[in-house]
Amino acid sequence: MRAIFIAVGSELLDLDRIDTNSLYVARRLREKGILMDMKVVVGDHMDHLSWLVKKSCQRAQLVIISGGLGPTEDDITREAVAAALKKKLVFQESIVADLQKIFQRRGMAMPEINTRQAFVIEGAEVIANPAGTAPGLYLTEANCQVLLLPGPPNELVPIFEDVFARHIAPAANYFIYSRTFKLTGISESEADASIADIYRKYRNPLTTILASPGVIELHFLGRSKNSDEEARKLTDELAEKVRDRLSRFIFADKDVSLPEVIVAELKRRQFTLAVAESCSGGGLGNLITNVDGSSEVFLGGVIAYANSLKTGLLGVTAEVLNKYGAVSTQTAQAMAVGVKRLCGAAIGLAITGIAGPGGATPDKPVGLVHIHLHAADDDKGARQLFSGGREAIKLRSEYAALNLVREHLKGLDNQVS
Amino acid sequence: MRAIFIAVGSELLDLDRIDTNSLYVARRLREKGILMDMKVVVGDHMDHLSWLVKKSCQRAQLVIISGGLGPTEDDITREAVAAALKKKLVFQESIVADLQKIFQRRGMAMPEINTRQAFVIEGAEVIANPAGTAPGLYLTEANCQVLLLPGPPNELVPIFEDVFARHIAPAANYFIYSRTFKLTGISESEADASIADIYRKYRNPLTTILASPGVIELHFLGRSKNSDEEARKLTDELAEKVRDRLSRFIFADKDVSLPEVIVAELKRRQFTLAVAESCSGGGLGNLITNVDGSSEVFLGGVIAYANSLKTGLLGVTAEVLNKYGAVSTQTAQAMAVGVKRLCGAAIGLAITGIAGPGGATPDKPVGLVHIHLHAADDDKGARQLFSGGREAIKLRSEYAALNLVREHLKGLDNQVS
Repeated sequence: MRAIFIAVGSELLDLDRIDTNSLYVARRLREKGILMDMKVVVGDHMDHLSWLVKKSCQRAQLVIISGGLGPTEDDITREAVAAALKKKLVFQESIVADLQKIFQRRGMAMPEINTRQAFVIEGAEVIANPAGTAPGLYLTEANCQVLLLPGPPNELVPIFEDVFARHIAPAANYFIYSRTFKLTGISESEADASIADIYRKYRNPLTTILASPGVIELHFLGRSKNSDEEARKLTDELAEKVRDRLSRFIFADKDVSLPEVIVAELKRRQFTLAVAESCSGGGLGNLITNVDGSSEVFLGGVIAYANSLKTGLLGVTAEVLNKYGAVSTQTAQAMAVGVKRLCGAAIGLAITGIAGPGGATPDKPVGLVHIHLHAADDDKGARQLFSGGREAIKLRSEYAALNLVREHLKGLDNQVS
Repeated sequence: MRAIFIAVGSELLDLDRIDTNSLYVARRLREKGILMDMKVVVGDHMDHLSWLVKKSCQRAQLVIISGGLGPTEDDITREAVAAALKKKLVFQESIVADLQKIFQRRGMAMPEINTRQAFVIEGAEVIANPAGTAPGLYLTEANCQVLLLPGPPNELVPIFEDVFARHIAPAANYFIYSRTFKLTGISESEADASIADIYRKYRNPLTTILASPGVIELHFLGRSKNSDEEARKLTDELAEKVRDRLSRFIFADKDVSLPEVIVAELKRRQFTLAVAESCSGGGLGNLITNVDGSSEVFLGGVIAYANSLKTGLLGVTAEVLNKYGAVSTQTAQAMAVGVKRLCGAAIGLAITGIAGPGGATPDKPVGLVHIHLHAADDDKGARQLFSGGREAIKLRSEYAALNLVREHLKGLDNQVS
C-alpha cells in the first residue's frame, strides 16, 4: 500500500516550525508494514492543496491530510479536497448540534463562523472529535482511502486511531513485528561496524540505526505476508544475533530513556544519588530531574563550575587541583567522594571536563572529560574524549556519567549471582 | 516566484528523522521574498522522485532538491531528474579528475563506484563541492530553475549559497527587509492579544509569532517591488509600533538567546552569579553553561532537590520550611540569600516549585513556582503559575529566573540615569 501524508498550514513552512504529526502517523503505519512514499508540507492555499490532493490520490492508496479544518477563512482543507475529488460539500445539521453542545459545555454561545465546520464532503464518514470542534472525515475514492484530520496533535491522535483500527490496519498487506534496543557507551559508527556483517544480510527485517548524543537506537522491523508469528520469528532471529554482540551496551529494549532506567533501578534498591558537576553545569541533574518521581532517589548536588566551589564545598584539595588540574582523574574522584559525603548520598557522581570551544591546553583538548562514581563498595571512573560542539560534549558527558551508575548497579547484581 | 523543496532520502521518512535542509533554504529564500509553496520528503525511489520532479516543474518556477547525489545504488536523484525532464545523463571526464584529486588528498585511490558522480544532466551547470565528492547541478528547463544539492548540510550550504547569489536572488521579484524581537516574561496569547490590532492591519509586512517555553519570537518581513528602502520603511513602521507596546518584554532584536544576553551583560559589569535550584534540578545552570565563556561570570551553585540540602547547604531554616513550605516566597528568598553567601557571588538566584505531575497539594498546584534574586542592593522575587508538562514547567521557571536577572540589571541602569 502506498501512503502519502500531507500537512496543511502556512505556519509549517515558515521559519523553523516542524510538522510532528507526520512522525506519529509514520510510526503507526510502519507498525502495520505500511511505509510512506512521501510526506508534504503545504501552505493554506486552495489551489496548491487541491492540486496536491488530486495528484496524490492518483498515485497512492492512502492519503492522510492534517490541518486546515478549523472554522476560519484560512481553513481550506475541506473545500480543497472536495474540489480535487470533484465532490460537493454538503451541510450536515447534526454537526451543528454537536458543536453547539461543545460550546454550551464551555459556557459560550457557538460563534456563527463555526457552522463552516458542519460542511462535509459528500459520501464521507464523519468522525467525532473528542478534544475539539473539527470532526475528522474519511472517504474512499476509486482505489484511494482519504483521511482528513485536525492539526492539533491531541485532536489528531484519537481520530486517527479510530480510523486506523477500523479501516487502515485491516487493509494492510503485511503482518509486522518490531523490536528496539537502546544503547549507551558506544558511538554510532562503532555500533554499525560491530553488527553490519549481520544485519546487512537481511532486507527483511529492516534495520534502522538512530543516533543522538549519548544514545544509539537500533530498530528492527520484520514483515510477513503470512502470519504474525512469522514476522516475529524473522525479527527475533536478527535481534538476538545483534544482542549477542552488543549486550553490554544495551540499557533498554523498549522506549524508555537512560535517566528513567537509572531512576527506576535506584528506586528498586532504595539508593540515593548526588551529583557534582563542573563542565556539564547542571545538565546531569537536569536530565535526572526530567524523570517524574526522581525526587525519591535524587538528593541534588553541587554545580562546581568555579574551582573555589570544588575546594570550598566538595573538599577537592588545592594540592590535587594544582598538581593534576581541574580536569583530571584525581579531581573527578575527589568531587565524587566530596558530594557523596556532603549530601549524605549512597552514590556520588562527578563530571569535570572541557566543553569548549575555549579552555583547551596542549595536553588537554576540547572534549576531554573525566567522570567518576563513588559508593561505599565501589569507586570507578573513566577518561573520555568526546567530539561535537559544546552542548553535544556536555550531553555525552552526562550520558557517560549515567552509564557509570548503570555499570555500578549491574556490578552489584553480578556480585550477588 | 513559486518554490518547491524536495528532500530525498528514505531515512528522512523513517521514524523521527527530520529534514533540516528545508528550514535553512526556506529562511534564505524568504529573505529575498520567495515563499515556499510546499516542501516534500520522498524516499530513494526512482519512480516516486521522477514523478514528483515532473509535477513540481510543471507547477513551480524554482525546484530545489537535496540528497541522493552520492555514489551508491541508492542515490538516484541524478537519474530521476533526468528522466522527469526527458534529458540524457552525460559522462563528464573533468569531474572524474576532480574526484581523483579529492581522494588523493585523503591518501586513497578513488573507488570505482564514485565514477557514478561524474554523470551530469545534459545542459546542467556543475557546481564544485568544496566539502565532499558530490557536485551540485543547476539547470533551467522551460520556465523552471532546478537545483540539485548534496544532502549533508555542510556540503549543501556552500553550493546553495553560490547558486542563490548568482541565479536565484537576482531573479527574485521583491526587495525584502526583516526584523525580529525576542521576548520573555509574557505568554504567546498575551503577546498576540496586545498587538493583534496593530499587525492584523498589515498584510505587508508579514508578521509571524513563534513560541517556545519561556521565549516568544516576533518576526516582521516587509516586501517592496521598488526598493530596499521602501521594504525597510514598511518593516520599521510596524516593528516600532509593536516595540512601543511590548518594549519591557523584549530582550533582543537579533538571534541571540536569553542566557547569552545575560552572560554578556554580567561580563560587561564583571558581576558573578550563583544558582540554587530545587524543581529545575540543574536546568538553570545547564542553560547558562550552554553559553560559551559563561565560566567568566557563572560560579555554579547548589541543586537543592532534597530539603536536607536546602537547610544543610543553603541555610534555609527548618522554621521557614515548616511554616511556609519548600515552595514559598520565604524559602525561595532564603535559597537566593544562602547561595549568594555560600559561593561568594554578586547575585544569588533561586527556583523552587512543583514541576509535577505529582507533588501538588490543595493550595499548591502543579506549575506553582517561586523564583527569587538576591544581590547587595536588590532583593526581588515572583510567584508564577506555569502550564505544560514537567519539562516545560522546568524550562519556563528557568527563563523566569533569568528574566529576574535581566530586570535587576535594567534596574541598575535606571538608577544611574
